[in-house]
Amino acid sequence: MSSLPKSVAPAASGAHQRFVPVDHTKVAFPGGFWESWTRTAREVTVPSQYRRLEEEGFLEVLDFGKPPAPLVRPIQPSGLSMQHFFDSDFGKWIEAASYTLKTHPDPDLEAKIDGIVEKLEQGQMADGYLNSWFIRREPEKRWTNLRDLHEMYSMGHLLEGAVAYFEATGKRRFLDVMIRAVDHIIDTFGPEPDKLAGYDAHEEIELALVKLWRVTGDPRHLKLATWFVDERGQMPSYYDGEARRRGEDPATYIYQTYAYSQAHEPVREQREVVGHAVRAMYLFSAMADLSHENDDPALKAACDRLFDNLTGRQLYVTGGLGPSASNEGFTRAFDLPNETAYAETCAAVALGFWTHRMAQTDLDRRFTDRLETVLYNGALSGIARDGEHYFYENVLESHGQHRRWKWHYCPCCPTNIARMLTSLGQYFYSAKKDELAVHLYGENTAELDIGGRFVRLRQETRYPWDGDVALALTLENPATFTFTLRIPGWCREASVSVNGETVDLGAACVKGYASITREWRNGDEIRLSFAMPAERLYAHPAAGEDAGRVALRRGPVVYCVEEADIGIEPQRLRLSSEAALEPRFDATLLGGAVVLEAEGLEADAQGWTGDLYRTTAPELRPRPFRAIPYHLWANRETGAMQVWLLEA
Amino acid sequence: MSSLPKSVAPAASGAHQRFVPVDHTKVAFPGGFWESWTRTAREVTVPSQYRRLEEEGFLEVLDFGKPPAPLVRPIQPSGLSMQHFFDSDFGKWIEAASYTLKTHPDPDLEAKIDGIVEKLEQGQMADGYLNSWFIRREPEKRWTNLRDLHEMYSMGHLLEGAVAYFEATGKRRFLDVMIRAVDHIIDTFGPEPDKLAGYDAHEEIELALVKLWRVTGDPRHLKLATWFVDERGQMPSYYDGEARRRGEDPATYIYQTYAYSQAHEPVREQREVVGHAVRAMYLFSAMADLSHENDDPALKAACDRLFDNLTGRQLYVTGGLGPSASNEGFTRAFDLPNETAYAETCAAVALGFWTHRMAQTDLDRRFTDRLETVLYNGALSGIARDGEHYFYENVLESHGQHRRWKWHYCPCCPTNIARMLTSLGQYFYSAKKDELAVHLYGENTAELDIGGRFVRLRQETRYPWDGDVALALTLENPATFTFTLRIPGWCREASVSVNGETVDLGAACVKGYASITREWRNGDEIRLSFAMPAERLYAHPAAGEDAGRVALRRGPVVYCVEEADIGIEPQRLRLSSEAALEPRFDATLLGGAVVLEAEGLEADAQGWTGDLYRTTAPELRPRPFRAIPYHLWANRETGAMQVWLLEA
Repeated sequence: MSSLPKSVAPAASGAHQRFVPVDHTKVAFPGGFWESWTRTAREVTVPSQYRRLEEEGFLEVLDFGKPPAPLVRPIQPSGLSMQHFFDSDFGKWIEAASYTLKTHPDPDLEAKIDGIVEKLEQGQMADGYLNSWFIRREPEKRWTNLRDLHEMYSMGHLLEGAVAYFEATGKRRFLDVMIRAVDHIIDTFGPEPDKLAGYDAHEEIELALVKLWRVTGDPRHLKLATWFVDERGQMPSYYDGEARRRGEDPATYIYQTYAYSQAHEPVREQREVVGHAVRAMYLFSAMADLSHENDDPALKAACDRLFDNLTGRQLYVTGGLGPSASNEGFTRAFDLPNETAYAETCAAVALGFWTHRMAQTDLDRRFTDRLETVLYNGALSGIARDGEHYFYENVLESHGQHRRWKWHYCPCCPTNIARMLTSLGQYFYSAKKDELAVHLYGENTAELDIGGRFVRLRQETRYPWDGDVALALTLENPATFTFTLRIPGWCREASVSVNGETVDLGAACVKGYASITREWRNGDEIRLSFAMPAERLYAHPAAGEDAGRVALRRGPVVYCVEEADIGIEPQRLRLSSEAALEPRFDATLLGGAVVLEAEGLEADAQGWTGDLYRTTAPELRPRPFRAIPYHLWANRETGAMQVWLLEA
Repeated sequence: MSSLPKSVAPAASGAHQRFVPVDHTKVAFPGGFWESWTRTAREVTVPSQYRRLEEEGFLEVLDFGKPPAPLVRPIQPSGLSMQHFFDSDFGKWIEAASYTLKTHPDPDLEAKIDGIVEKLEQGQMADGYLNSWFIRREPEKRWTNLRDLHEMYSMGHLLEGAVAYFEATGKRRFLDVMIRAVDHIIDTFGPEPDKLAGYDAHEEIELALVKLWRVTGDPRHLKLATWFVDERGQMPSYYDGEARRRGEDPATYIYQTYAYSQAHEPVREQREVVGHAVRAMYLFSAMADLSHENDDPALKAACDRLFDNLTGRQLYVTGGLGPSASNEGFTRAFDLPNETAYAETCAAVALGFWTHRMAQTDLDRRFTDRLETVLYNGALSGIARDGEHYFYENVLESHGQHRRWKWHYCPCCPTNIARMLTSLGQYFYSAKKDELAVHLYGENTAELDIGGRFVRLRQETRYPWDGDVALALTLENPATFTFTLRIPGWCREASVSVNGETVDLGAACVKGYASITREWRNGDEIRLSFAMPAERLYAHPAAGEDAGRVALRRGPVVYCVEEADIGIEPQRLRLSSEAALEPRFDATLLGGAVVLEAEGLEADAQGWTGDLYRTTAPELRPRPFRAIPYHLWANRETGAMQVWLLEA
């Protein structure tokens, strides 16, 4: 079941020396940091999300034979109801569930997916069109409002689900349904005069089409993705004409600017990351894919510029992104409010998708450093330790008003973090002809195919709690290839040895990856040691919200202080620049974690009588405190939290 | 024209030894700080606001004979259109305009008001009902939704306008129209079983009825105000029943809690200032009035508790209040975000109304200190130096995204600050039988009647730029009465002398007011000297947003740093606790103002490469800067601004 059926052409990937991520099913997490996160995702998150989809009426939209039920989500001022894109939610759920099936077969789960697929197939229109909202409620309006109504966004997620399910089970039914839907899109959209020159304002179909192309090898799939990306932002805007055809004045567009959808100018000309954050990340993911598949350095250059803009000016220290709720996205350079941070879980997950793709064509740790940042911080914070409560917004400061929820008005995030965790292994390793890249560290075992050389690898490590990593190799016959190991950007003192012999990292490193080429033998061991002191981070002075403040980081893990640990609001705390930060492993904390202990100072409110303001500064008195990993916050009693601590 | 016509009973005020504010027409500002502000309000603000009302179609709502024009403001999710309460806007404009008429007669202006009054009279329904929205658009819906639709709020503002116009001109027509409207309200609402036991969710009618009662002496007017205030928050809620009568489920109320309208519990039981800030201040103003008129110490105690809660936990240093845009109001104790401060101009103006009323019955500087704070800061910031641009939200920090506007989607603030400035004199002095209270300082001349003793007073001072004030008395015959002078709460070194003889303030002061009883003679002079150093203010440690920061204040004036003065975002600046703050009068700055000059430190962004975060703190290098009065910000080129400066 794991190989492609012959009727579908093999993926064309790798032709241009792209790294190919390892199949996630080849990486297991039998212990260590990710063991409980991935197990919980599989055992709790996936089944509980199906229950939510049932309970909340999401699956009802597939009862094509019945008259539609009353709306459970009202129409927004934009004309969009969250219900317009319920298909995307079970599309993403199928994807997440599928990722678990090969390693953990579950006939009941498979039957649930088959049930959804059967309904989708029954509902699909004769011409291939597939969108439950429009088929059941407003068939006459299909393809009349790409700007607001997410038709292709929903289809894209169904398509990703279909590809994942096919790869997990070999069953073609869902894939065929979606190929027919894509055929319909190809019939409808394109540069030809008899077609619509439009593209969905919520990107997603583009990257899904690349996934499809890698399965089908059908050049029409790649061509459509490419055309959608290049058509985006061409003027006059498709959305203007489309609005006029609906009898609307384009000037009344509620989001005012097509920058909201990265459609304000051609993507190759874009230099600033703007608009809705998830849309941007999905677009850039497709651009990264296409820059490789089409051997298109200009598109790669656009990605690089956008990446630099994001990381240099618009990215939270946690890897969160998109500070503003009003556009679910970006505002201006250095605008990084902490308590009102939107920083949607989906956006951090999708930044992981983008950076992962970038690293496959350009092995540079600046990409995988960010991937690691979201995995250990701003994406992981989106799911509770229990695997069934979530954050949509990942604030960096709270006064206790933020609580994880069981399900959301717009539940896009739960399935997004689920599909990341259920396919986590793919982010750890990539291979090409004679080279294996190790991007991430964390206890795991992997079965790797490096240009036909089969290697079993075992990472033994307490990472991210400890910086020592041992990579033990098992291979039947000696084989010569290159091991390329990421030296994390956060690390300023790294050493690598092979069978006890130190590697000269200065000579071995390119773009933060150390390459070791040799004949590898069974039992060889690579040891990495990353010095992992607790550190203070300072934000760029233009990020005014963080001025005079420090964030604490150790290794890839960003810390926060939670009221639950210290009994007062952390906003009361200050940390002197001299105070020692003492890491200590606390086995009792939510599955075990390294906490940072320090002697802080507490601003004393005693003597503050009546008025809010006075002319003498509050007294500061010693207050020991501890900081916990940011991704663990809001898993105990509700209270205040802060990432950026005031320096005393 | 200045005395009441005989057909209307004289005001009943003063019966319980309440201070009565001086008629604003008796105070002139021939020079000094307030000269240009009050002149501009009269010469620019009032006429330009009428033009706006015309241009923007507000006055069209009074064309009762014509079919209504298409909506210029859409219906909000709450069911309310801003257009529902356009009456309130020209009601407030009439009030502001009326305040100018006696001292600066203007037949053209009077004719404009008469034109509006004529239309209102024509449109008024036979039963006295008067509200342009409901009469023209939805007569069948009148009095069906007190929770959302502002009917009595609008009538209240018309009523205040009518009282002001009557007092300015002696013309009864508008007053009579509104008395008929009030008769209709009395017929419709009340405790009697055949009446509706409802009250408007947007308070305003209550304080307007007290104003009316003080003109008419009709006990029904006072009784209705009292009943509205006491009925408020009684359970089961009137709004629940009203919603059910409309066929709505009360649980779908968009603001979720009647605390939004201070209607969650009886007002006497309220201990926390909650909900919509302007509503709260209008309610509390009425409560302050009624506590006096009804000799009701329990109501006064409720006001005191609410005042303490506001000032101890929820008030910006500028006098701004109501931090949140989502409810235009309060959130939780110590939640005082700076850049997202809502701090509506109307709310600061109305805090002035409330504190002014409180001081008349309880001469305590804690009230007039706040009145002074809003006058010099959080209310005055709502109007531009040119008198025709405005802020609705008065943030304490900006990155340059905030600009003053010519007119607003919901233009409640311009007419509110206008009516405050065109009646400014009333806030300076109050009198009762044998006592004159001086609440505020600033160059002016006043003609005062202290229990039949006529005194001309001249304040000579550069206040607030200087703390020296000379009060020169002119009176025909010697007279014995008490001069009661506020010693501002911000002042820690005050001296007062009479004809050169020092007053023992320790003995003379009660609640921050120094009383001097003697026989006053023509030519007597009181000199006050308030030490006015530039000071740093520190916020209560629980106000986390201000932790580690200082605000600068000198006398009653709060300062800010604006990019226009320093060429960099003030968010880059830090101020050491030792740095001297040097006041200097800059005659060229927007009409002249004392600025504060200091040596600051600038966080240097040089050497910050690529990444937003690094492990070394930014270098700090000296950077001289100056701070300007907060009320003057955003009158030059657009840029960043900050009130709370980071301490180095």
